Amino acid sequence: MIQLDKKETTDHLYLEVYRYYRDLIQNGKMLPGSKMPSLRKCAQELKLSRTTIENAYLQLAADGYILAKAQSGYYVTEISVHQRQKASSRYSQSVNVRFDFSSAGVDRESFRFDLWSRYIKSALRQDQRMLTYGEVQGEPDLRQVLADYIRHRRNIQCSPDDIVVGASVQCLLQVLCPLLKSRYHSVSFPNPSFVQGSTIFQDFGFQLHYRDKNSQVIYVSPAHMTKWGEIMPVSRRLELLEYASQRESLIIEDDYENEFVYLQKPTPSLFGLSGGQNVVYIGSFSRLLLPSIRISFMVLPPSLLDAYRKKADFYNQTASKAEQIALCQFIRDGHLASQTRKLKRLYAQKGKQLCQILSTVFGKEYSIKMGPAGTSLALTLPCVVSTDIVHKETEKKGLRIPVLSETADTKTFLLSYSAMEVQDFLPACHILKETLQSLSVS
Amino acid sequence: MIQLDKKETTDHLYLEVYRYYRDLIQNGKMLPGSKMPSLRKCAQELKLSRTTIENAYLQLAADGYILAKAQSGYYVTEISVHQRQKASSRYSQSVNVRFDFSSAGVDRESFRFDLWSRYIKSALRQDQRMLTYGEVQGEPDLRQVLADYIRHRRNIQCSPDDIVVGASVQCLLQVLCPLLKSRYHSVSFPNPSFVQGSTIFQDFGFQLHYRDKNSQVIYVSPAHMTKWGEIMPVSRRLELLEYASQRESLIIEDDYENEFVYLQKPTPSLFGLSGGQNVVYIGSFSRLLLPSIRISFMVLPPSLLDAYRKKADFYNQTASKAEQIALCQFIRDGHLASQTRKLKRLYAQKGKQLCQILSTVFGKEYSIKMGPAGTSLALTLPCVVSTDIVHKETEKKGLRIPVLSETADTKTFLLSYSAMEVQDFLPACHILKETLQSLSVS
Repeated sequence: MIQLDKKETTDHLYLEVYRYYRDLIQNGKMLPGSKMPSLRKCAQELKLSRTTIENAYLQLAADGYILAKAQSGYYVTEISVHQRQKASSRYSQSVNVRFDFSSAGVDRESFRFDLWSRYIKSALRQDQRMLTYGEVQGEPDLRQVLADYIRHRRNIQCSPDDIVVGASVQCLLQVLCPLLKSRYHSVSFPNPSFVQGSTIFQDFGFQLHYRDKNSQVIYVSPAHMTKWGEIMPVSRRLELLEYASQRESLIIEDDYENEFVYLQKPTPSLFGLSGGQNVVYIGSFSRLLLPSIRISFMVLPPSLLDAYRKKADFYNQTASKAEQIALCQFIRDGHLASQTRKLKRLYAQKGKQLCQILSTVFGKEYSIKMGPAGTSLALTLPCVVSTDIVHKETEKKGLRIPVLSETADTKTFLLSYSAMEVQDFLPACHILKETLQSLSVS
Repeated sequence: MIQLDKKETTDHLYLEVYRYYRDLIQNGKMLPGSKMPSLRKCAQELKLSRTTIENAYLQLAADGYILAKAQSGYYVTEISVHQRQKASSRYSQSVNVRFDFSSAGVDRESFRFDLWSRYIKSALRQDQRMLTYGEVQGEPDLRQVLADYIRHRRNIQCSPDDIVVGASVQCLLQVLCPLLKSRYHSVSFPNPSFVQGSTIFQDFGFQLHYRDKNSQVIYVSPAHMTKWGEIMPVSRRLELLEYASQRESLIIEDDYENEFVYLQKPTPSLFGLSGGQNVVYIGSFSRLLLPSIRISFMVLPPSLLDAYRKKADFYNQTASKAEQIALCQFIRDGHLASQTRKLKRLYAQKGKQLCQILSTVFGKEYSIKMGPAGTSLALTLPCVVSTDIVHKETEKKGLRIPVLSETADTKTFLLSYSAMEVQDFLPACHILKETLQSLSVS
């Protein structure tokens, strides 16, 4: 219900209504494009005549705050946006980015939306199942399929009862951290880049370190050791397990991008190598399916299962039930396996093509770091101006490209090529070259 | 990769394979219904002949562990379930519950699956949008629609930038608690029943109290004060706000079931009454749409927005992007409003019908507590035997009915009637009556 200060004189009631909405629009509480209440409804709610409301609306329209659309009603215009506080500027998309090397999205052509859509529809047809809350630990049939999947692909022997499903790696860590808190107090991450993970540990009061072997919890992404796709060799994996077992530390193995190992055989998982002793395994599908499908899972070792089961009922399942049911059947029917093969081929090829283009564009002036896996490479170029200026100038020309590190006379850029289309590689690289040239001249 | 202890004599290799899978099945690492690897694949992986594998499978089938399905392959049977440890018994559904007064599900007939399905399909058709991660704070268009929605229905003036979307109330609390930790250390819940909420505060080290006015954070569900539908009157709301403002405590207003107020006008929200000062508003849709659709949201007051914005980028969005896009358009097109009207009518009617049936079945021996809102009532009956025995005996007869409280000679049951069908009320009540009668005689 809207409340107005109704003045004594009814003459200016419409102005009260006018000011009420004008303020809402100016404060950004009604954004451009939002629909005004219908005259009838507004009149009803405010217990005023329709004419009063209409007068107010006409005044708002006259002042440009709203706009009438035939057969539809009144809508807030763009006019007042300029007057608004910049509170929301953080959320505004940069307008003209045509080429984006920073995107962690997936290749546009790679995903079969029609197919996924069919699985979702079929999940929604399971009326009775959709009418209730999901299993706290994740849908049982999905957990069975996941157990089979990681047994075949990652050498992990576990029961569906050992698997916990969640909407994201973060959601899983939010369930895991409280279980660890009584026993462990420090955590080590390989580097500061996975802030979504380290934030959760910090939220729960863990001491956060980087590359610190003495931490009680060691978080690793063995298939994604560096952003440019280096992976942890088996010998190092065995060393790490041995070291952790001696010190009774816990390893959290985030198997991110394990499917995208091109140049060698996939290395066995830490969980598999250790037989599940003191390793938590985390898997996710954002790189295989769509980033917008929110399903991850973790496998808990026996040492944590009891503690988890005591608390499990206190947590809600976070992943969408429809997406869980769809993913289960999608995997059963072999589509995840074929999608994985397809993406692996595609990304290996795209990486190669990008390398060729870099060589064509930059001649002998560049160096590349590119591991045997992943969907990114690190490109080092001579450049003496500051990172800020490089970002500003490239974005002006429609190119977004993150800087990974810098020295006095070089910049190392990170080029993620999973989402960018191949035909964009060349123009994007040319923009980078031209920008750096013009900056070095000026 | 599977690893076997290959013995010297190749004669019994098939037995090794047999034992390997038998153990997996007996340990519950392969559950009934899961598919065995194909003969070809298994032979390839183990570097054994197809005949060896086939012999092993035939032996497994002969012993009843697996079953061949024509044109499809081998599947694990139910046989070994009985031998398994009861580790997973927690997850097994009670088999014969025909009537369930404990379900927080929604009425089967009430939800238009076809309609929702169409909105999801249309969301999935937005290819480009589905290819990227969602906005950390929630999709902007959904937040706009939510801001409009609560302005009209809950008297809340806020901008879409003040709204944070998450997969569940828990997910939101997991973002909120770290923001509160530096300023607040104690939290009060009205009672121990919302364990999903209190757990999160405990996970973050808050002191947990019940009905404690001195706590720094006060968690309330004003539209769901008791399980049987009592709501907080406006006078009490104003008192609470006044008290909290004097002591600078923070109120978290969980507006659960606010749409299901039948017998009086909806009371204004605390957030609206306070103008958003020191109140966090939480809304969700599990009771209006499907419990399996995981979308909730919170409105942060100005005092918390800055702290949130500094950390926002460190959190992933937990709610499914497709479901967010679908919900946005669903609300825009007026379906949430009509669904709400429909459910409100339906549940008011079901409550009345259940009351009539209770009167018919229990004559003068019972008393009911039923507030002006909600989808449950509290039924007190004479009963001298223990709650455990009542549960055991009713479940034997196919009725699940939770006990809310007890005295020496009465039990108070909680009857949730949102999910149960009307035609089941009478037989369910008869089972309860007969069980109590037979227990009082024996």
